[in-house]
Amino acid sequence: MYSFTNDYSEGAHPRILNAMMETNLVQHDGYGLDHDHCEKAAQLIRNEICQADADIHFLVGGTQTNLIAIAAVLKPWQAVISATTGHINVHETGAVEATGHKVLARHTPDGKLTPAIVEKALKSHTDEHMVQPKMVYISNTTEIGTQYTKAELEALSHFCRQNDLYLFLDGARLGAALTSPVNDLTMADIASLVDLFYIGGTKNGALLGEALVILNPAIKPDFRYMIKQRGAMLAKGWLLGIQFEELFTDGLFYQMAEHANRMAGLLRTGIEELGFPFYSHSMSNQLFPIFPDKLIQNLSSEFQFLEQAQVDEAHHAVRLVTSWATKESEVSRFLELLRQLS
Amino acid sequence: MYSFTNDYSEGAHPRILNAMMETNLVQHDGYGLDHDHCEKAAQLIRNEICQADADIHFLVGGTQTNLIAIAAVLKPWQAVISATTGHINVHETGAVEATGHKVLARHTPDGKLTPAIVEKALKSHTDEHMVQPKMVYISNTTEIGTQYTKAELEALSHFCRQNDLYLFLDGARLGAALTSPVNDLTMADIASLVDLFYIGGTKNGALLGEALVILNPAIKPDFRYMIKQRGAMLAKGWLLGIQFEELFTDGLFYQMAEHANRMAGLLRTGIEELGFPFYSHSMSNQLFPIFPDKLIQNLSSEFQFLEQAQVDEAHHAVRLVTSWATKESEVSRFLELLRQLS
Amino acid sequence: MYSFTNDYSEGAHPRILNAMMETNLVQHDGYGLDHDHCEKAAQLIRNEICQADADIHFLVGGTQTNLIAIAAVLKPWQAVISATTGHINVHETGAVEATGHKVLARHTPDGKLTPAIVEKALKSHTDEHMVQPKMVYISNTTEIGTQYTKAELEALSHFCRQNDLYLFLDGARLGAALTSPVNDLTMADIASLVDLFYIGGTKNGALLGEALVILNPAIKPDFRYMIKQRGAMLAKGWLLGIQFEELFTDGLFYQMAEHANRMAGLLRTGIEELGFPFYSHSMSNQLFPIFPDKLIQNLSSEFQFLEQAQVDEAHHAVRLVTSWATKESEVSRFLELLRQLS
Amino acid sequence: MYSFTNDYSEGAHPRILNAMMETNLVQHDGYGLDHDHCEKAAQLIRNEICQADADIHFLVGGTQTNLIAIAAVLKPWQAVISATTGHINVHETGAVEATGHKVLARHTPDGKLTPAIVEKALKSHTDEHMVQPKMVYISNTTEIGTQYTKAELEALSHFCRQNDLYLFLDGARLGAALTSPVNDLTMADIASLVDLFYIGGTKNGALLGEALVILNPAIKPDFRYMIKQRGAMLAKGWLLGIQFEELFTDGLFYQMAEHANRMAGLLRTGIEELGFPFYSHSMSNQLFPIFPDKLIQNLSSEFQFLEQAQVDEAHHAVRLVTSWATKESEVSRFLELLRQLS
Repeated sequence: MYSFTNDYSEGAHPRILNAMMETNLVQHDGYGLDHDHCEKAAQLIRNEICQADADIHFLVGGTQTNLIAIAAVLKPWQAVISATTGHINVHETGAVEATGHKVLARHTPDGKLTPAIVEKALKSHTDEHMVQPKMVYISNTTEIGTQYTKAELEALSHFCRQNDLYLFLDGARLGAALTSPVNDLTMADIASLVDLFYIGGTKNGALLGEALVILNPAIKPDFRYMIKQRGAMLAKGWLLGIQFEELFTDGLFYQMAEHANRMAGLLRTGIEELGFPFYSHSMSNQLFPIFPDKLIQNLSSEFQFLEQAQVDEAHHAVRLVTSWATKESEVSRFLELLRQLS
Repeated sequence: MYSFTNDYSEGAHPRILNAMMETNLVQHDGYGLDHDHCEKAAQLIRNEICQADADIHFLVGGTQTNLIAIAAVLKPWQAVISATTGHINVHETGAVEATGHKVLARHTPDGKLTPAIVEKALKSHTDEHMVQPKMVYISNTTEIGTQYTKAELEALSHFCRQNDLYLFLDGARLGAALTSPVNDLTMADIASLVDLFYIGGTKNGALLGEALVILNPAIKPDFRYMIKQRGAMLAKGWLLGIQFEELFTDGLFYQMAEHANRMAGLLRTGIEELGFPFYSHSMSNQLFPIFPDKLIQNLSSEFQFLEQAQVDEAHHAVRLVTSWATKESEVSRFLELLRQLS
Repeated sequence: MYSFTNDYSEGAHPRILNAMMETNLVQHDGYGLDHDHCEKAAQLIRNEICQADADIHFLVGGTQTNLIAIAAVLKPWQAVISATTGHINVHETGAVEATGHKVLARHTPDGKLTPAIVEKALKSHTDEHMVQPKMVYISNTTEIGTQYTKAELEALSHFCRQNDLYLFLDGARLGAALTSPVNDLTMADIASLVDLFYIGGTKNGALLGEALVILNPAIKPDFRYMIKQRGAMLAKGWLLGIQFEELFTDGLFYQMAEHANRMAGLLRTGIEELGFPFYSHSMSNQLFPIFPDKLIQNLSSEFQFLEQAQVDEAHHAVRLVTSWATKESEVSRFLELLRQLS
Repeated sequence: MYSFTNDYSEGAHPRILNAMMETNLVQHDGYGLDHDHCEKAAQLIRNEICQADADIHFLVGGTQTNLIAIAAVLKPWQAVISATTGHINVHETGAVEATGHKVLARHTPDGKLTPAIVEKALKSHTDEHMVQPKMVYISNTTEIGTQYTKAELEALSHFCRQNDLYLFLDGARLGAALTSPVNDLTMADIASLVDLFYIGGTKNGALLGEALVILNPAIKPDFRYMIKQRGAMLAKGWLLGIQFEELFTDGLFYQMAEHANRMAGLLRTGIEELGFPFYSHSMSNQLFPIFPDKLIQNLSSEFQFLEQAQVDEAHHAVRLVTSWATKESEVSRFLELLRQLS
């Protein structure tokens, strides 16, 4: 049984574990304040995004990062706009609402928000009897594998700045976005267009860890209080620093994401050749092919993956996810089995 | 300028003010614990609903009552299902989310939830990565003037009990519902079908006040702590008791609502005769006729009312609300002006 | 049985009820936006405090006002400093904590905070592992009847401004403070020294209502969102406006408080003459004489009042509260009974 | 420069890192649901505590565990009683209050709560105008190095059960408590006396991780929702399982704690021999000797440690913490320097 369930089924890239091993018995300052690793990793990221003044915090996981970023920024009556498919709207057990803020979920054709969609949300919130939309939350790649072009992100950024809205990008799968064959964004582009974003480690070869990058100076002061209060300040914080140090040395972050995308590309091409349609147009490491239910059942005896949505009485979209650790031989074996079963 | 903006544009029925006057200098125990009025009013309501064990709390307003009822009942990870048009979803500035709970808004054709809609919400919330739906919130009448039949409420109640969901009915306009010509529910029916509900005073001739009725014994203990914590325990609580005492003496509650509905009936008939369509099918005291924008502008010079929604490029649905205090002469004058302008 | 339990045992001053009667059937804009009464009352208060730009909101009760004022101002990790005797620390069922903020309670000899006490609290909160003190909450009069002198309030205000702390004054019993024989503050003085404060109506002859006055411009924007979200925006808001209009016309606010203080003065003098000590030094309308338990029991057969604290095995401090409605004949009767029983 | 700042200055015991290395490329189910490690570790702990039905959840850190455990259990108006020195009261940036609950801090002579202290807190909270105390939070060892005897914990447990209070034990340093020379408790004793507790990994040789053990069946249902909502469900959850598997195999957990305590014992004896007094009576891995300020300054040139409290104008208590990784040679060097400087 091989799993395409997600991109966090294995541990970490060996370079990361080795780095931990090598420094294991060295004494460090705690809570992310060490200069050996956290500060060094932050500097590597600042270089990568060409933002010498960015504040960078290393957190443990995605839901944690989202709830902290959103609750630190919004006033009690302010709300965050998200695609209905947005991670914060569906798969975080109401984490944002638990901080007191409404998620204004808006339908999208492809998991991406546009200025038009956001504008409509603004126009329907006119006075103090309704929440005040104040932040736009997007994911890149999105939860259904799609991604923003530079033009799209620029347009959204422009609209947000015109309308005094914060723009927050959830980069749990930012590696997959930036190394996709259709990508035209750099991490520096993103940093110049949003108020804050995070760079996902967990889903791209780290043991655990997300790097939250704050660009907007208004959000920076006292941010560590929020991290501590929400139980997200890791005692042995340098463990996160070490991982991002490795990720941003010699391009490891991009190499791992590229591998995941290449494996997904093989899967996509193979599935397309067999004539199966897809639930969304993904050029990244999450694919959503639509299979007959009988076929899904048969595939499941040898491969593990999730069902995403029922399409009709006899078909479901499934989710296949590749990662830095996906073996090409298993991709081939999957496609072979698919051919046999089709 | 006469206002059809809402049903809380005037003070209170004179009987209520007189009762306040008469007891003004009598000393009372505070915080709703007086036996002269609060306990007496509670007993009148218990009789009305045929539930000798109901707990009854007198609160100041609707948003307050909703947020307290919902937050007192739900565990942190539980959510409340509401129609998208539900007051808690739109017009309470995120009051429920501010207590930490997600509102799961579901589209409805007519502002009313059904077992089928609720079941679909349950089925899409399958594990701990999503909130846990645990309460169903309905309004009667709804925010667009529609109302539940006995059969509909029984079906919803049955479904909720089968699925271990709390059923909470927002009765801000319960008077209008129960005296509508198409109503087949009694207040006692409602009390037997829901876990908790409230009886609206503010929108039916009281100065202020809503009576929250708790039927489910699991919800009763320590409820006054919640009221106090949310700033809703009125120091001079007997002022609320006096009002509900009057409302439930000699049928005043129903008489006032009937008047509002009768005035709305005249408006509805008159508008229908002139051939205007309606945005929703309301047989209660809120009407949503669709008028040409030019007509709306002209009407606005003599009457005050709200626009509800844009229907097309040249038409809006407006909201006309009648109350216990609406003057029949003003209804006639409105219809006359409408005829002239049509 | 006559009650000295509190200053909200009776309804409202007749002038207030009459004003409500007279305007009862006039149509008003809701939610505190009417110009007839809310805006007029706000203007009267602005004149009284010599602050043309103050924002004034009319709320229903004290706990509600405190939680809204505090939660609107503080960031999630910020805390409010209060005397341990402060109303927010003891008698609001954790209302402030329910908004997410810690109350840093500090012991005081007399219910009053000083720069020295606040400074010590600041010094013990040094980094992001602890909450960040950001607001100072005081009551005038305090919960044990004491009150701030002008010099004391100036010193505290100066300290807060030096240390970037908000200063919030709970004036539930502001009338009693300002008309006490030892008072040297005006309402205008207070307005010039704090960031926000409220003027209590409930405990000084209104049916219900507190006027929150915001001086600091940073706190003003969007404040009505917070009011609505916490269920504190009264539909028939003009009812609050009418009351404050009356309170600030022809000095009614001060007259009623003066009466309460004069009645308390008679009580205090009488009790002192009989040689009983007091739990606190109060020159306002709350007195805390220390009586033998046997005496308390005997007094209780004819008068109602609360026990405040056990002083030793045979004595308690009781709380006697006078109000605008207290009858001088009852004060005399109380003192007479006390004499007989002593 | 050698650090006695805390017990989380180094990485993990080599056995733990090796176990991670060996399983690094094995695919696992996420979110703590894997059977290879999380379930196996849970079973080892169930055996250790002789509680076959205990629910065990692996979380990342202490503040996170505390806030989740407390907020999952309490109703909105309920409060948790803690020593003023309790971690939740001081060093978690108001994490508990941020979930809406008041921490009722009570002074203790030694960081430990007793039935008498708790009873007094109960007696001063009498009605719905005050929070309702419902949980008792204790730490073992405490934040000042003291620890509960079996008799003390039994008495507290008995009192809590009599008074319908939850008892929660923060075991961030449970290893140090259970291996202290004066300890007479087993982990099984603790499990039989509390409603829930956690076993600290971070401060006893794990990279990160705390094992929350739920004994009270009423607390078990749906607990994973709470974990997910607060951002504490680790994607690669087996990483925590692996660590606790190692900790509870061949007694590693106790061996590491014993080493820490033995190192502290050497320090304590050495310091005592030199005649210095201590701020608290600790027989565990945190020591609080009182040194002259000049001496502290001189020690600081070669050793890193924290100041705990100012004792008088010329003395501070400092905090010296040992761990599983503390080198005996550095303890000797510290004592030697101390002797020279004394």
